[in-house]
Amino acid sequence: MKSPVASLLWRSLRIYQIFGANTDVGKTIFTTLLARTAKRLWRDEEITYLKPVSTGAEDEADDRHISRFAPGVSRHTLYQYDIPCSPHKAAIASGKSIPADEEFLSKCRDFAALCAAKDKGWLFMETAGGVHSPGPSGKTQADLYIPLRTPSVLIGDSRLGGISQTISAFESLRIRGYDVDHVLLFNDDVYENYKYLGEYFDKNYSIPVSSLLEPPKRHDNPRRDAEALEEYYSREDSGEVVSGVLEALKQSHCARLSNLDSMATRASQHIWYPFTQQSLVGPRDITTIDSAYGDFFQTLTPKSADGPIHDSAVLKSSFDASASWWTQGLGHANSKLTLAAAYAAGRYGHVIFASTIHQPAMLLAETLLKGMKNPRLNRVFYSDNGSTGMEVAIKMGLRATRKRYGWEVNQNLKILGLKGAYHGDTIGAMDCADPGIYNEKVEWYEGKGYWLDYPTVLCKHGKWSVTVADGLQETFGQGKSYKSLDDIFDVEAREERGEHKLYEEHIISTLQKCRERGVKFGVLILEPIVLGAGGMEFVDPLFQRTLVNVVRSSPHLFGEPVQRASEPANDLNEWTGLPVVFDEVFTGLYRLGRITPSTFLGVYPDISVHAKLLTGGLVPLCATIASENIYKTFLSPDKTDALLHGHSYTAHPIGCQVALESIQEMQAMDKQGEWDWARFQGWGGEQKRTKTVEVWSIWSHEFIKNLSKQTDRVVGAWALGTVLAIHLRDNAGAGYSSNVAIGLRDALSLEREGESGGPWNVHCRVLGNVLYIMGSQVSSETSVKRISELLTENLANH
Amino acid sequence: MKSPVASLLWRSLRIYQIFGANTDVGKTIFTTLLARTAKRLWRDEEITYLKPVSTGAEDEADDRHISRFAPGVSRHTLYQYDIPCSPHKAAIASGKSIPADEEFLSKCRDFAALCAAKDKGWLFMETAGGVHSPGPSGKTQADLYIPLRTPSVLIGDSRLGGISQTISAFESLRIRGYDVDHVLLFNDDVYENYKYLGEYFDKNYSIPVSSLLEPPKRHDNPRRDAEALEEYYSREDSGEVVSGVLEALKQSHCARLSNLDSMATRASQHIWYPFTQQSLVGPRDITTIDSAYGDFFQTLTPKSADGPIHDSAVLKSSFDASASWWTQGLGHANSKLTLAAAYAAGRYGHVIFASTIHQPAMLLAETLLKGMKNPRLNRVFYSDNGSTGMEVAIKMGLRATRKRYGWEVNQNLKILGLKGAYHGDTIGAMDCADPGIYNEKVEWYEGKGYWLDYPTVLCKHGKWSVTVADGLQETFGQGKSYKSLDDIFDVEAREERGEHKLYEEHIISTLQKCRERGVKFGVLILEPIVLGAGGMEFVDPLFQRTLVNVVRSSPHLFGEPVQRASEPANDLNEWTGLPVVFDEVFTGLYRLGRITPSTFLGVYPDISVHAKLLTGGLVPLCATIASENIYKTFLSPDKTDALLHGHSYTAHPIGCQVALESIQEMQAMDKQGEWDWARFQGWGGEQKRTKTVEVWSIWSHEFIKNLSKQTDRVVGAWALGTVLAIHLRDNAGAGYSSNVAIGLRDALSLEREGESGGPWNVHCRVLGNVLYIMGSQVSSETSVKRISELLTENLANH
Repeated sequence: MKSPVASLLWRSLRIYQIFGANTDVGKTIFTTLLARTAKRLWRDEEITYLKPVSTGAEDEADDRHISRFAPGVSRHTLYQYDIPCSPHKAAIASGKSIPADEEFLSKCRDFAALCAAKDKGWLFMETAGGVHSPGPSGKTQADLYIPLRTPSVLIGDSRLGGISQTISAFESLRIRGYDVDHVLLFNDDVYENYKYLGEYFDKNYSIPVSSLLEPPKRHDNPRRDAEALEEYYSREDSGEVVSGVLEALKQSHCARLSNLDSMATRASQHIWYPFTQQSLVGPRDITTIDSAYGDFFQTLTPKSADGPIHDSAVLKSSFDASASWWTQGLGHANSKLTLAAAYAAGRYGHVIFASTIHQPAMLLAETLLKGMKNPRLNRVFYSDNGSTGMEVAIKMGLRATRKRYGWEVNQNLKILGLKGAYHGDTIGAMDCADPGIYNEKVEWYEGKGYWLDYPTVLCKHGKWSVTVADGLQETFGQGKSYKSLDDIFDVEAREERGEHKLYEEHIISTLQKCRERGVKFGVLILEPIVLGAGGMEFVDPLFQRTLVNVVRSSPHLFGEPVQRASEPANDLNEWTGLPVVFDEVFTGLYRLGRITPSTFLGVYPDISVHAKLLTGGLVPLCATIASENIYKTFLSPDKTDALLHGHSYTAHPIGCQVALESIQEMQAMDKQGEWDWARFQGWGGEQKRTKTVEVWSIWSHEFIKNLSKQTDRVVGAWALGTVLAIHLRDNAGAGYSSNVAIGLRDALSLEREGESGGPWNVHCRVLGNVLYIMGSQVSSETSVKRISELLTENLANH
Repeated sequence: MKSPVASLLWRSLRIYQIFGANTDVGKTIFTTLLARTAKRLWRDEEITYLKPVSTGAEDEADDRHISRFAPGVSRHTLYQYDIPCSPHKAAIASGKSIPADEEFLSKCRDFAALCAAKDKGWLFMETAGGVHSPGPSGKTQADLYIPLRTPSVLIGDSRLGGISQTISAFESLRIRGYDVDHVLLFNDDVYENYKYLGEYFDKNYSIPVSSLLEPPKRHDNPRRDAEALEEYYSREDSGEVVSGVLEALKQSHCARLSNLDSMATRASQHIWYPFTQQSLVGPRDITTIDSAYGDFFQTLTPKSADGPIHDSAVLKSSFDASASWWTQGLGHANSKLTLAAAYAAGRYGHVIFASTIHQPAMLLAETLLKGMKNPRLNRVFYSDNGSTGMEVAIKMGLRATRKRYGWEVNQNLKILGLKGAYHGDTIGAMDCADPGIYNEKVEWYEGKGYWLDYPTVLCKHGKWSVTVADGLQETFGQGKSYKSLDDIFDVEAREERGEHKLYEEHIISTLQKCRERGVKFGVLILEPIVLGAGGMEFVDPLFQRTLVNVVRSSPHLFGEPVQRASEPANDLNEWTGLPVVFDEVFTGLYRLGRITPSTFLGVYPDISVHAKLLTGGLVPLCATIASENIYKTFLSPDKTDALLHGHSYTAHPIGCQVALESIQEMQAMDKQGEWDWARFQGWGGEQKRTKTVEVWSIWSHEFIKNLSKQTDRVVGAWALGTVLAIHLRDNAGAGYSSNVAIGLRDALSLEREGESGGPWNVHCRVLGNVLYIMGSQVSSETSVKRISELLTENLANH
């Protein structure tokens, strides 16, 4: 979906989508009956029958069918093709322009909104053919209609083979998050599918199945045909089945609303939120998410006490601007990822991963190793999230260093890192971060490291600059502006110009001082390019590169090796100085536009850690990838020398299968130039450039430059890959406790009425004085432009 | 599945199962063509056509069809019902006994084994109706055939609506782990489904779609009908399509084998295993898992260099006796859990959980809180695994205590626990365990606690006893035998008899000494009843109960409260002394037969941690549940006083939805008496007993008693819920480094030929001198009995 389309939910309009288990199972008859009976029971309400897309010259006939058999019910068609075949073929054959999916859905939504505005009532939307019959664009209906998330009624197949058809059609809906509220079918007495299905759906899903007599066989005489049908309709209409179905659907509609309405309150009573000062968060601050698709949540707009409620949309599209804590790559509810997860669940469930191997874990390991293009890496260790994966990396690195330098286990080894580092919330990962408000009140936190200051990159006053904080200029120089961000990333050219000299001197002298003070370092840990949780700080890549180079070329700054490293001449992949760990949990796997941010630096880690985007944003999984030399440190005849770490769900097949699918998909998108539109918006993608220095973002270059010129409110901004960060001016002193970004965040969260597709807003998170907006790998140019405009407008207005 | 049935895989027999997207799509015609063309191309091989179940009096006719149109191909039917309708109805109507699913599958497997024994060749198995058409027992075929995991060919539907039917049928197979290697259908030129489906399957799954001309319309004259059909078959047979399909199928068969054959080697080159000394693990020690179902993996039996290979089964059923590191509850590849996971994936993917709420997280929290029946608990905090969940619990508990007693943040608070404790592998969780071989070589490990000794429970010499290690008898007394395990769990009666007095005195005096030494405790952490990773130690429940009671009634042993606890009279849920944390990750959620092991102790925690079985064994998820009073400790106007912990995938909807499904399913099983068979095997379930003391296990009481009498090899044994632990005698001194259990483990892992269903073995893990076997909540009496016999036999033989 390119543009947001809000799901169809109004308080007084009960909307049901009618899907068929197959063609010719009686969808129209059932829908007619539902509408007709609704009209009888809710005499004063508007009852509408919508056929979003209709093929064949039958529209008029159908219209007559409705006006004859369901008087008082209005019938509408949004797209009519005269050729009697599947909509995708009919649309092509019609010669008319084929509506894009988002246009199609907007039109459905606009129609429903009109109905909702009129009065209380029912809207029955009948789909065409079976659940997976293609819509006009060629996308199957089950995929096409997902964003509307309309509760559904499935018309089962009462014929021979119909049990199978009904269950399979149901499953295709279910795995796309549809709620099927009722199954209806004819009660054929030969096959008795209704009996089997009744038990099946009750037992497995608690979904009611209702059945009706079959309609009369067609008469050759149209008048007698119509009479027989009228007799059929009036008998079934007055019977208890259809009214019972409608009553159940109504209850289900009310239950959905009351569940949505109560959820924030219930959550405030029983949920303990991560990273949240709950005394500041009441039910009204809790966002209720009904579902999500692509880049958008569907969030509840709470009932307001005043005003008419029948026409107010209950749900709006909320752009997920934190990419759900930086995890989203291929969009929420991506069917390919769902199918991958379900395949692995169906094939394995979970299987123990101690001296066993299964295909998803094997292929994922091979795909990651190949994809990273880092010859140092050869071993994959799986865990559950970035924090645990970092703990694994630390255990690996500390042991390797301790062995190399002949130190005892209790030597209080330190990590070398950058100020503002963040590697997760388990104690071991916390201990790798310098003391700060994230950890200083945590009882067992103990910062075990030395953390360097560094120059950062920002676009300021329209110019890309390496900026150095006051007080650090003696160390790092005055900072400097560059013609382009590419030039900042051209680290080799900058080295040729000697720009790294000051960095080198500072790092060496710092490490020397540490050594003199007796500090023993175990490992160098970097978040390459961007320190995310530390406030979206974009580190000068030349600084990180220089740091790695100094560490590797200066083993004498760390200790006297007792175990000789392989000769570099023999093994280019041997680590020297300290093992270098890259925490790529946030910045890796295309978040910054490349599969690994190492390639920006031109230096490669001995251990790298990957999570978040690893599964495209679906389930927790982490891979800690290490060099063979690090791995060998743990080999011994003694079991207890092994890396004694593991989780029950290590390498769980679902996670591995989804990760495999997601990485392959992102690699294919990269190769196929899916992000070319982004490259071409001022980032110079149209020019012939060397791969090493090519940078791009979904956020246009011009937009960043302009943002950075709003100097009364903005210190600077940067964009890379899918990430945009705006550092706002806080005259009271910036930092995590700053509130300057809150106002902007709240402005973005205001509900707006879209030109079409219904209300929308932006759901974003702030980090102190920084507001960031993170797209996914499938964010559309339209969404990005719309949000860019909104930001520009808001920053100018305040 | 009750009995193991090995998947159908032999090296020289290519087996394909033919599924139809619907009835009447040409399954028989395509299967005939495949068999006929195979016979033409592989003249010297055996080509077999199997119809496992056939309905209608057509068998003879079909047989003639094959002998006429595919001469040289043999045709077989395993179950024949003369009534022409769906197998489940035909089976009932036939009056014959309906085969249980495992019997049905065994028969399929035995037939395939016979084919494999004969010669190289092909076996085509044609299913009945559509993929979800019910088999004889009423289970749908897509569910029924899962354990055979036969690669499949899907016959698509070329008629109107057929696109939908084909995709839905495919999805029903895919989400059950089937590999569909090819899609075949007729190339109807009106609907052109083959074109759409060709693109669809290529783009989404890289699965080839091939199409053939439709067969001739039926003639009234049988002779001309046959002639026309023969002409059709011979044209298609000699064409390139069918031979191309067969060639692709053959390649796919070979690729599957070579992938399985190479995987252990590739794993040994690139995987870094958890908790594994890899110098001791070569490719031959790595178990290749092809798939899993119920309690069984399908594992590779590696090629042996000698002997004929054509008739050796490539896969065997391996009982997952570690329940995949204690995670499995509802069986591998449980379709209900798969569908739950896929529904949440389709509805949400993942959505951020900071001040948001979604239905699966809400319902799961409510279900857990209600299910635990512990009035203290009111707040659910989600994380990814037991280790992170324990870190959360520790952060919660330490803060509450620190505030209560007015201590500064850097007070080096300790945990109070039991020796041999294990709470996970992240550093914070490790620090809660006493020093031992699991952690002493880990650089950042620092045991932060005091750990008590305790008496244990074992069945020894046929008697249930509280046993006290030498050297502790002065403290805890001599230990004692009891009439039954129930009596040991009757903690109230034992208290009335004063059996807790020695425990109480010891605990109080120990805590007093700690206080005198200046130790500040932050939290009491217990694994209720069983210390799992610590060596399957079954702690005397009276000891744990006494410990909790002492801690709660003796706040003066810990500090001087500066913040008053609520008066117990006002708030029975207020914690006193120390917050009590139960790590129920292993022992909770029915692992020991009850939803929470707290009920065995009759004392309830202030914080409890749940993972592993939480999702029935499918995906990682953890819930740390806390009392409202603990929660309130973190409320303040200051953001940084919040519990600053969180993971990106906190409360991921897939995990929550699966957990919800799984807990509700286990609760329903409990209520419906699904484990009555286990209760009735000597555990006294047939007697009227008070709920408090009722204990049971899937392992029969008599079996445990007999095991414990093998005193030359067995120190003692115990069983509770699904767990069996055998403590083996190690004259060299027991412990984690002991190897005595390895021999028994290896004996269990030997491949055995089942009476039917093919080869099987037991895949189990040992903990030092302890061999444990853990069933799931769906383990069958048959499996348990078979393994019991095997154990008895092996312990007697050695």
